[in-house]
Amino acid sequence: MPFVHRFTVPFADTDLAGIVHFANYFRYMENAEHAFVRSLGYSIHQEHDGLWIGWPRVAAECRFEAPLRFEDEVEVEVTARAPRRKSVTYEFRIRRVSPGPEVVAATGTMTAVCVALERENGAMRAVPIPADFLARLAERVNSTGG
Amino acid sequence: MPFVHRFTVPFADTDLAGIVHFANYFRYMENAEHAFVRSLGYSIHQEHDGLWIGWPRVAAECRFEAPLRFEDEVEVEVTARAPRRKSVTYEFRIRRVSPGPEVVAATGTMTAVCVALERENGAMRAVPIPADFLARLAERVNSTGG
Amino acid sequence: MPFVHRFTVPFADTDLAGIVHFANYFRYMENAEHAFVRSLGYSIHQEHDGLWIGWPRVAAECRFEAPLRFEDEVEVEVTARAPRRKSVTYEFRIRRVSPGPEVVAATGTMTAVCVALERENGAMRAVPIPADFLARLAERVNSTGG
Amino acid sequence: MPFVHRFTVPFADTDLAGIVHFANYFRYMENAEHAFVRSLGYSIHQEHDGLWIGWPRVAAECRFEAPLRFEDEVEVEVTARAPRRKSVTYEFRIRRVSPGPEVVAATGTMTAVCVALERENGAMRAVPIPADFLARLAERVNSTGG
Repeated sequence: MPFVHRFTVPFADTDLAGIVHFANYFRYMENAEHAFVRSLGYSIHQEHDGLWIGWPRVAAECRFEAPLRFEDEVEVEVTARAPRRKSVTYEFRIRRVSPGPEVVAATGTMTAVCVALERENGAMRAVPIPADFLARLAERVNSTGG
Repeated sequence: MPFVHRFTVPFADTDLAGIVHFANYFRYMENAEHAFVRSLGYSIHQEHDGLWIGWPRVAAECRFEAPLRFEDEVEVEVTARAPRRKSVTYEFRIRRVSPGPEVVAATGTMTAVCVALERENGAMRAVPIPADFLARLAERVNSTGG
Repeated sequence: MPFVHRFTVPFADTDLAGIVHFANYFRYMENAEHAFVRSLGYSIHQEHDGLWIGWPRVAAECRFEAPLRFEDEVEVEVTARAPRRKSVTYEFRIRRVSPGPEVVAATGTMTAVCVALERENGAMRAVPIPADFLARLAERVNSTGG
Repeated sequence: MPFVHRFTVPFADTDLAGIVHFANYFRYMENAEHAFVRSLGYSIHQEHDGLWIGWPRVAAECRFEAPLRFEDEVEVEVTARAPRRKSVTYEFRIRRVSPGPEVVAATGTMTAVCVALERENGAMRAVPIPADFLARLAERVNSTGG
């Protein structure tokens, strides 16, 4: 089963067309990714072996299939594809579950690269995904067929 | 020459990694699209022949190549691909021009479909792009080789 | 007891100083207000007697006492002051509950006026708060000493 | 004369009521503050004598007088009140200048405290405003009667 993150659409996310502004779907995907990472016992922003690890995105895309509106109940499914040594690609399915009938509002993907952050000057360099996190991720991928 | 939209990165667009949050790149692309449409004498949200016209997105993607930071000077190039009857695809190149040297921070595309909006109930249906706007867009595409 | 709305601080709400950007506290207050209104069986954006009702703000203020950071667990307490005929003032207390010890991160108020919205042209005019909603609100104020 | 910052209202800043969402007014005030500080030859986020200086807000408030809409042309006037040793209060007047007639959309204030940031752990402590910046600010306050 993919990981599922649930939320209610906030008022501020809508625009004058009466629907959720499309840029917010990327925040929804990220929030679901971060909740998924927390469910594995990690944070996407933490210290590993004395390095601050971050996950800047190298690519993101979304296909919008049905609008979301204020107070819709939404579920975002997250699946991690088989991770590479320094990057992970996540797949997302954003579903409106209420008011019904349930529809897929959007599908998307996001690729994030694992970097060590130099906090003094903001420099970033790609590093191998920490082994313990990679192991938890791989376990999850296997269990979900992701 | 592609249309170019310029701005300075606002503080609120950065995140704790010290760089612009990736979801904001989609707002940057949209702001450039809208400035481009204004440069043609139109607005992306206006009445044509008694219908309210809107342009919801059906797809958007971005490849992130270099980070943007607070107070960077940025230029977004917009090129319209040959428009279809009811939709347009825009291509974007986001460049950091200061502090130098100039780099491409991201490239992306966005496809928007022309809809008539029922303002009372928020319903939307795809309609042909208004002829006068389509003519201005085609003219611009031809002059830019877009 | 005041109504309490809980959430986890999203990554995108932080800024380069590593803390939640102050403008987001106003969204947090609004989200809590809207959850409170839903808890009374209403929506802040709905039809009453053939009018679309909205609640634009006439004033908002916030005093920031302690920073919030990514993944903090937050509770927002909402109290409605005795409502007036066409407007309501809400008081908010934003508390960080994890990681501990618990602290008050901010306190604020927001005054919203009840308006009828003309959806065709966006015009708004102040109207009396619908009687049934006012009754539920007053009941809640009395039970909380708000 | 107060410092004036100009911009065009972006689409993403509107909400389903067809007007700019109120939380964005606080970003507008901040953008104007930062442009004002740049006009003095400084940045609100920079190194002074080996310390990273930041300006977290301790209070912000806004009174909303007229709505702003998509593509409105807006001017934000910034006035610094006589600065204190470790904090500054800015006053803002947000005016819609087009489409006319010109109206005051909102007025607000923001108080920011000068802190030294420990970038490794995010700790902040209030410090005296750097003398050179304080001098430029005081000069500006005197010349504007602010």
